[in-house]
Amino acid sequence: MQGKISQVVISRLPRYFRYLGDLKDEGVERISSSELSKIMNVTASQIRQDFNHFGGFGQQGYGYNVNYLYEEIGKLLGLDKKHNLIIIGAGNLGQALANYMNFERRGFFVKGIFDCNEKIIGTKVRDMTVMDISELKSFVIKNDVDIAVLTLPKTGATKISEILVECGITGIWNFAHVDLDLPSHVSVENVHLSDSLMKLSFKIKGEKN
Amino acid sequence: MQGKISQVVISRLPRYFRYLGDLKDEGVERISSSELSKIMNVTASQIRQDFNHFGGFGQQGYGYNVNYLYEEIGKLLGLDKKHNLIIIGAGNLGQALANYMNFERRGFFVKGIFDCNEKIIGTKVRDMTVMDISELKSFVIKNDVDIAVLTLPKTGATKISEILVECGITGIWNFAHVDLDLPSHVSVENVHLSDSLMKLSFKIKGEKN
Repeated sequence: MQGKISQVVISRLPRYFRYLGDLKDEGVERISSSELSKIMNVTASQIRQDFNHFGGFGQQGYGYNVNYLYEEIGKLLGLDKKHNLIIIGAGNLGQALANYMNFERRGFFVKGIFDCNEKIIGTKVRDMTVMDISELKSFVIKNDVDIAVLTLPKTGATKISEILVECGITGIWNFAHVDLDLPSHVSVENVHLSDSLMKLSFKIKGEKN
Repeated sequence: MQGKISQVVISRLPRYFRYLGDLKDEGVERISSSELSKIMNVTASQIRQDFNHFGGFGQQGYGYNVNYLYEEIGKLLGLDKKHNLIIIGAGNLGQALANYMNFERRGFFVKGIFDCNEKIIGTKVRDMTVMDISELKSFVIKNDVDIAVLTLPKTGATKISEILVECGITGIWNFAHVDLDLPSHVSVENVHLSDSLMKLSFKIKGEKN
């Protein structure tokens, strides 16, 4: 099923999950597509179309069961399974992500943090000692790590990503300022912060014209 | 001109800018759309179509002048102008962004950093003293700030964003885990890190099925 679903639909799932989590926290038990559409500022027909890709999630006439929908979208997103992460690059951004507890709530556990700078190796981030890149391979295998977070400069990112693939990593969350060209069984999600800031700059410029 | 261009085309501009910057650094003077297409892994026809939205950027037969193209796309992105930023939320992520020097290379200058936690107010981040949120308004006006970076929990983000708009901020780079509903003259660019990590989790799951 999953293979046929467009990237655009997939990219909307985390947002649905976020809003449904808020509704659940507020104690809402059922919600219609039109109510959800108002809160999320998308059309009710888009919501129904999106959900139909995954079997519809139950009777529309009675509205959706919020808890059920939240759980099901969570499963689609793979959040019913634990993921073990490592962070490559213990600079400011790597440290910030290592300290971000919210990821654990979703089943993402930071198991280790690595750097190649001798001044940083051996220091502590959260309760973890920063390790040398040379320890990468044995650590990944021993700790059943499936996701690597790249928070290092772009010059080192391509080579490290290839080593990570050799180690058996299947997911890369890439903050390095470079696009990675990896085998198709490896999933990559890019967060190019500079690109994002430039998009904002473009939008501001548009408003001023 | 700009108003008619789709968000999809706009979202590709920073990536062109990034690749052209690399080519420029490597000393490449001219490049054809087909050469650029191979490096960037998009079709040459998409490149030509994208560039035609902005007047085409010169003769295709001779290839594009790399430096000219880099400068022109930079201007489109508003990078020929300086932007003054403030960061709201001096936690790990706020500190990481404050310390990221690369933004300055693009003309984005962090002028101040704010928090509402009394334990953090008065501490130093880079060479800046973390200020109290109550000082926001006078600071924004005095320092001609146009962009605010929101790196605070979602509970405070909506209220702060409204205050920022009152202060005259026209661009918000939003890392808070909430969608902001602001007047149309204010541009918002979201970086929802948890959403991005969930997308990666979905992709990994797809590869395993």
